[in-house]
Amino acid sequence: MSGGGDGNRDYGHKAFMRSKSHFTDRITADGRDGWPVEAGRYRLVVSRACPWASRAVISRRLLGLEDALSMAIADPIQDDRSWRFTLDPEGRDPVLGIRFLAEAYERRETGSPGGVSVPAVVDVPSGRLVTNDYQRITLDLATEWSDLHRPGAPDLYPRARRDEIDAVMAEVYEDVNNGVYRAGFANGQDEYEEACAGVFRRLELLASRLAGQRYLVGDTITEADIRLFTTLVRFDAVYHGHFKCNRWKLTENQVLWAYVRDLFQTPGFGDTVDFDHIKRHYYQVHTGINPTRIVPLGPDLSGWLTPHHREELGGRPFGDGTPPGPVHNGEEVPARGRP
Amino acid sequence: MSGGGDGNRDYGHKAFMRSKSHFTDRITADGRDGWPVEAGRYRLVVSRACPWASRAVISRRLLGLEDALSMAIADPIQDDRSWRFTLDPEGRDPVLGIRFLAEAYERRETGSPGGVSVPAVVDVPSGRLVTNDYQRITLDLATEWSDLHRPGAPDLYPRARRDEIDAVMAEVYEDVNNGVYRAGFANGQDEYEEACAGVFRRLELLASRLAGQRYLVGDTITEADIRLFTTLVRFDAVYHGHFKCNRWKLTENQVLWAYVRDLFQTPGFGDTVDFDHIKRHYYQVHTGINPTRIVPLGPDLSGWLTPHHREELGGRPFGDGTPPGPVHNGEEVPARGRP
Repeated sequence: MSGGGDGNRDYGHKAFMRSKSHFTDRITADGRDGWPVEAGRYRLVVSRACPWASRAVISRRLLGLEDALSMAIADPIQDDRSWRFTLDPEGRDPVLGIRFLAEAYERRETGSPGGVSVPAVVDVPSGRLVTNDYQRITLDLATEWSDLHRPGAPDLYPRARRDEIDAVMAEVYEDVNNGVYRAGFANGQDEYEEACAGVFRRLELLASRLAGQRYLVGDTITEADIRLFTTLVRFDAVYHGHFKCNRWKLTENQVLWAYVRDLFQTPGFGDTVDFDHIKRHYYQVHTGINPTRIVPLGPDLSGWLTPHHREELGGRPFGDGTPPGPVHNGEEVPARGRP
Repeated sequence: MSGGGDGNRDYGHKAFMRSKSHFTDRITADGRDGWPVEAGRYRLVVSRACPWASRAVISRRLLGLEDALSMAIADPIQDDRSWRFTLDPEGRDPVLGIRFLAEAYERRETGSPGGVSVPAVVDVPSGRLVTNDYQRITLDLATEWSDLHRPGAPDLYPRARRDEIDAVMAEVYEDVNNGVYRAGFANGQDEYEEACAGVFRRLELLASRLAGQRYLVGDTITEADIRLFTTLVRFDAVYHGHFKCNRWKLTENQVLWAYVRDLFQTPGFGDTVDFDHIKRHYYQVHTGINPTRIVPLGPDLSGWLTPHHREELGGRPFGDGTPPGPVHNGEEVPARGRP
């Protein structure tokens, strides 16, 4: 989850702590929390800059949920009222009619204490936030929303593999997804070094695992790959320099660089990535570590579309399913965000 | 020249300007400025962090001037009184007897306006600064100090090639040596982009030039190589992340990465480089661009000692001369600064 501005940071003496999601209602097939799965009822609010929100952007596309679950894309630059719809005409989300995501939070709970974060799912009729539970949203898209999946949608969280997927995702979360943030927002040299070393220790282990198999678990794309991808795709662009995770660039690690390019070139992954939003968000919002707000020109992105040769490892990207079709109208990433 | 703290920076509305050296007396064979070349009379004050001072550290070693011209190494971290001798016993340079380089400046000119920078050459008997003219000092070591050169010293500024060397050095200075500083200390996005683009445009041209020839001018090491080396050796360690010159790392450019490793592995180059001093200086002194003062763990330095295969291009590194001998006692770079 990406909170408002530096809202995720603790500038005090403690280590960087990621706050827990405050709203953890689930949207389920049986509607047991009061929020049944229903086509057209909810709106997914994301930022393309945010790795946690980007999981949902990718899952939604792989599963073909675009028509059932509409999507609002926030401006990558938050202001003091957090995520805002300044990319939309008159600065207002055309479906929810609000200017700030915070308004949906307020309708859910006045003066809610947790900060405003994406991904967020909003109930369109009431305008109320349903959930900002970034760890749960995509799992529910994969399992609870299955009646609305497209024909040929992959099984991103296969029952027989869940223990293994959960175990991999836990390690990836701790050392990679969140590890880069602990490095970047460290309050001191020791805290930074511990986090940064942990990032690369885990990446080395993941590279060993991926040297001989195309995907993290089994021979198909799963939620685990989505969660590793959303950090890796940002690695050289922002974590390497801005968060000082600079032992090596991903381009210097043969296995991981091929793995992430393979996913990037798979429909549903790279076509959701906006490097312009990513770079501007990190470098312009975190003034505590980049006071000049200058956004680097690099890295050179041309390598993302080069051959990766991972198909030689076999694997069935979509299992018994098929790749998603073209990106829906109006959801294309603008040219300046693409390699 | 590296000035005191951010003394080289202009935080106003103008572009980053490198100040001119204030003291430009020359030490010459004929002593026409009052400073004749003389063994044991002068002391070279440097920081191993500083690329401008490092030119002199390398030249002095290549030319075998260690016994004739002693060297003081300042702490890589300046305080508000600028460069200091806190690495020495009791924080005092054992030859000059001073705690701050500024004292030698003061003895030369009370209240001198120009800021304190390295490299600096100090007259030991009087304790007065002679010159901080970083563009001139190494050329004079190569040409005016020749009576004191070691047997087999190379000709670093050969008369027949001076026009070509000067032309290359002028381009390298503008776009590379100083270009990285203009990028890193830019006052705005446009100024940064112009400088950063210029850095990489020039590096691409230099890579073309060096693809088929081992050294920049002729077939031997010259002053031009020394000046390019001192920026390139710092590139991935500090300019890539800290100064946002991040289109690519040097390790990603086949020609330049081989060229700089070739020099690094040549006696007199790599054995003068202290990556620990370099990283701590840049990341801890420039709080305007790195307010946390956290020093990154990376980059991985192990590649510096790998084969470069540049000898296949021919070339005679020292021309009719020979490589320098081992590093003098007490001038070895500590292990933590080496790859």
